[in-house]
Amino acid sequence: MDKKQKLGDLRETKKKIWSSLLEHSPVLQSLTRGQLDLDFYRMYLIETCHYTSYNAKNQALVATRKDNLDVHYQKFCLHHAQEEVGHDLMAWHDLQTLGGAWQREFLPRPLAATEALIAYLYWISENGNPLQRLGYSFWAEDSYEYLSPLIEALQKQANLKDSQLTFFKAHHNIDQHHIEEVEQIVLKCAKDHNDWQDIEFVMQATLKLTGLMVDEVFQEYSKMKAGEKFHYQKAFERAQLL
Amino acid sequence: MDKKQKLGDLRETKKKIWSSLLEHSPVLQSLTRGQLDLDFYRMYLIETCHYTSYNAKNQALVATRKDNLDVHYQKFCLHHAQEEVGHDLMAWHDLQTLGGAWQREFLPRPLAATEALIAYLYWISENGNPLQRLGYSFWAEDSYEYLSPLIEALQKQANLKDSQLTFFKAHHNIDQHHIEEVEQIVLKCAKDHNDWQDIEFVMQATLKLTGLMVDEVFQEYSKMKAGEKFHYQKAFERAQLL
Amino acid sequence: MDKKQKLGDLRETKKKIWSSLLEHSPVLQSLTRGQLDLDFYRMYLIETCHYTSYNAKNQALVATRKDNLDVHYQKFCLHHAQEEVGHDLMAWHDLQTLGGAWQREFLPRPLAATEALIAYLYWISENGNPLQRLGYSFWAEDSYEYLSPLIEALQKQANLKDSQLTFFKAHHNIDQHHIEEVEQIVLKCAKDHNDWQDIEFVMQATLKLTGLMVDEVFQEYSKMKAGEKFHYQKAFERAQLL
Amino acid sequence: MDKKQKLGDLRETKKKIWSSLLEHSPVLQSLTRGQLDLDFYRMYLIETCHYTSYNAKNQALVATRKDNLDVHYQKFCLHHAQEEVGHDLMAWHDLQTLGGAWQREFLPRPLAATEALIAYLYWISENGNPLQRLGYSFWAEDSYEYLSPLIEALQKQANLKDSQLTFFKAHHNIDQHHIEEVEQIVLKCAKDHNDWQDIEFVMQATLKLTGLMVDEVFQEYSKMKAGEKFHYQKAFERAQLL
Repeated sequence: MDKKQKLGDLRETKKKIWSSLLEHSPVLQSLTRGQLDLDFYRMYLIETCHYTSYNAKNQALVATRKDNLDVHYQKFCLHHAQEEVGHDLMAWHDLQTLGGAWQREFLPRPLAATEALIAYLYWISENGNPLQRLGYSFWAEDSYEYLSPLIEALQKQANLKDSQLTFFKAHHNIDQHHIEEVEQIVLKCAKDHNDWQDIEFVMQATLKLTGLMVDEVFQEYSKMKAGEKFHYQKAFERAQLL
Repeated sequence: MDKKQKLGDLRETKKKIWSSLLEHSPVLQSLTRGQLDLDFYRMYLIETCHYTSYNAKNQALVATRKDNLDVHYQKFCLHHAQEEVGHDLMAWHDLQTLGGAWQREFLPRPLAATEALIAYLYWISENGNPLQRLGYSFWAEDSYEYLSPLIEALQKQANLKDSQLTFFKAHHNIDQHHIEEVEQIVLKCAKDHNDWQDIEFVMQATLKLTGLMVDEVFQEYSKMKAGEKFHYQKAFERAQLL
Repeated sequence: MDKKQKLGDLRETKKKIWSSLLEHSPVLQSLTRGQLDLDFYRMYLIETCHYTSYNAKNQALVATRKDNLDVHYQKFCLHHAQEEVGHDLMAWHDLQTLGGAWQREFLPRPLAATEALIAYLYWISENGNPLQRLGYSFWAEDSYEYLSPLIEALQKQANLKDSQLTFFKAHHNIDQHHIEEVEQIVLKCAKDHNDWQDIEFVMQATLKLTGLMVDEVFQEYSKMKAGEKFHYQKAFERAQLL
Repeated sequence: MDKKQKLGDLRETKKKIWSSLLEHSPVLQSLTRGQLDLDFYRMYLIETCHYTSYNAKNQALVATRKDNLDVHYQKFCLHHAQEEVGHDLMAWHDLQTLGGAWQREFLPRPLAATEALIAYLYWISENGNPLQRLGYSFWAEDSYEYLSPLIEALQKQANLKDSQLTFFKAHHNIDQHHIEEVEQIVLKCAKDHNDWQDIEFVMQATLKLTGLMVDEVFQEYSKMKAGEKFHYQKAFERAQLL
């Protein structure tokens, strides 16, 4: 098995899924048409607060498995978890810079799709091939590369300063070496066809679930703009945005 | 709070989600057009084997929470879990009656959407409002009522005997009193607006995830029929169906 | 392997451990010398409230294992868990009949030995041979047989009515068929030498930990009687017993 | 609340428990009388392999709690867990230097007391006050200071080289800064009387359980020397020591 080749294939698959996601995304089309505003960004940040507050925890969970874990992989998981601690605070910070008198307890329950993403990350961290969670890191750690056109568009349309986009921009700078570390540990630990397959499976599954989350945010945003009841209504009221 | 009224509303919401799901389902449209065959049913049964093998377990998990649980609800969960034990064996039985030399280890990993459903059921069983898992039972226990037109159509098209549909038909007979028990425990235990809301939330979320599972089965089926690589390919080969 | 013989051996080992425990028990010696009073019984009931409130939960936990569980054993665990629900309420009831204005939140943290017993029951329910938890039931379900001389002595010395001993007496009547069910499921499910060995191991370990719990209660009781600071001091004060 | 004072008290309590443990330890008395040999050390190392193989895992588990964790404490747990990874390999290394053809699968199940210690560490890592696990680190990280007389005595009696005592000696050098880090995080995070009390409770409980583990090793050792059946018999046979 040529590991370099396998890694190249995995990168290629990642690119293809992103292309397909971005092409069919109703959000991107709306951004392109100048139809998104701060409220969409607020909703997106709320979901981001939710799922990122669990990322360090489920990453660490892999290292607590009672299976006989590879020592290097176990250390990677703990080290990486440590670096993820507190990243939800960036999303929380950004939300606050957008205006509104936010308090953490105003946040509504995550959307169903966000809960499904969180649940899935816990599931694959606790069950099955311990390596498979690398499939999530494999795309999440360089997602900025793919998301930047959307973020630039959003920044222009909503007239945002960089300091209101720390989750994306500062995070991106912090994470830059992460994707290399992820690729290195994949190369080191993936031993056979199954390992590569499980990593790819989880990469696809979590990218798809993240896409569903963004779609559901967009549905709630559309409800708001149509004057219908929407998921964040009470939260927006409590934050004095409505 | 008028509990009977709340229950009526919950039933109404269930009906609406089913209508919407069935209306937009590519599977139903294919069934209507006579485009589904045994292979689709096989794939569907494989996913059913997977997720139902966890249902008794995550149902019981609610009763193991360290929270201070209502004693009646705790007993309901344990009793209901006991009744769900082994239901995956019906799906497994049905799969075998359709031909092919199946062994359990031939089954591939669940589809991503199936894993997301399983993961979500674990998540809501372990976290948040303990009552919310009733939202899943609330639709799953009388799903036959909504699914029967599809099942009849499938039975005709694929020329199936009742004994090849035990998961749906026998299960349905066994479960008939379950929906009443579920409604009774909801009436007994749901104390405030939050409880009803959490139950409804999980009803919607799990119905939607189940819909996504069926869609993904259909995508794999379509790949097979188009001669492309599909998720169950190796399994079908090992069962000597290809 | 002669299963009946194995069962006989297991019963024999149980008897021996009980004999040894009772022989060396400082509590029994104190009872014999008429040196125990209501306060000891109160302390014992407090610990009993704690550990029995977890018994149904860790019993059910065995049935939630993701291992491939024997269907009969899984049902046994769920059924047995259901019967254990609420048994802590008997100990709680008895505590209240002894006088004092008790509220549940007055109870202090369990003693270290009680926590170790609870922790161990969770550990062996979640890890290792799923059958091993039967080793706990194997002695706990007929413990009254061994404990009755102590209980009679205590009843006399502290001048207790039967209605103040429901945890022991009513519980005993309820549980009478349990030990038979436990022996039956052991006979049905224990397949090889390892199974019998693991069941015996856990029987010994949990009996020993229970003995340590009683010893630690006795140490706290002795501190109280010596006028020293003791674990239940604040609780007794809040219940207006001091 | 004077935190420095509280820390001083905690150190004082630690000293007292150690004194009491060492004074009453049958093992220490045997060492003093020159009655222990390599076999005792082997048995002790086997139990050490077991419980230390879980230490990094249950340490990390604290950081995976769904509670709202203090960010500094969460990072401490992950960092400390990372440093504990693989420490069981030192005990495993030492065991092998003592002779015998050891393979990992020869190791028998941990003794009941060792399992109780492991179980308890998991329990207090997953439940109750998240800070309480610091009570374990508070004594474990500088235990060498208290154990060194025993280790010196053992080293002389069994004629051991330093390279056969890496778990104690190298570990000690690695861990030297740990106790300072533990004291610092206790000072930083313990906010009220309850926090200090829970940390002290777990310090006492885990020291006591560790003492019980050593006692049970000694019991097995005594059985071996008396020619009785002992827990490690098969393992010693497979390692060709018997």
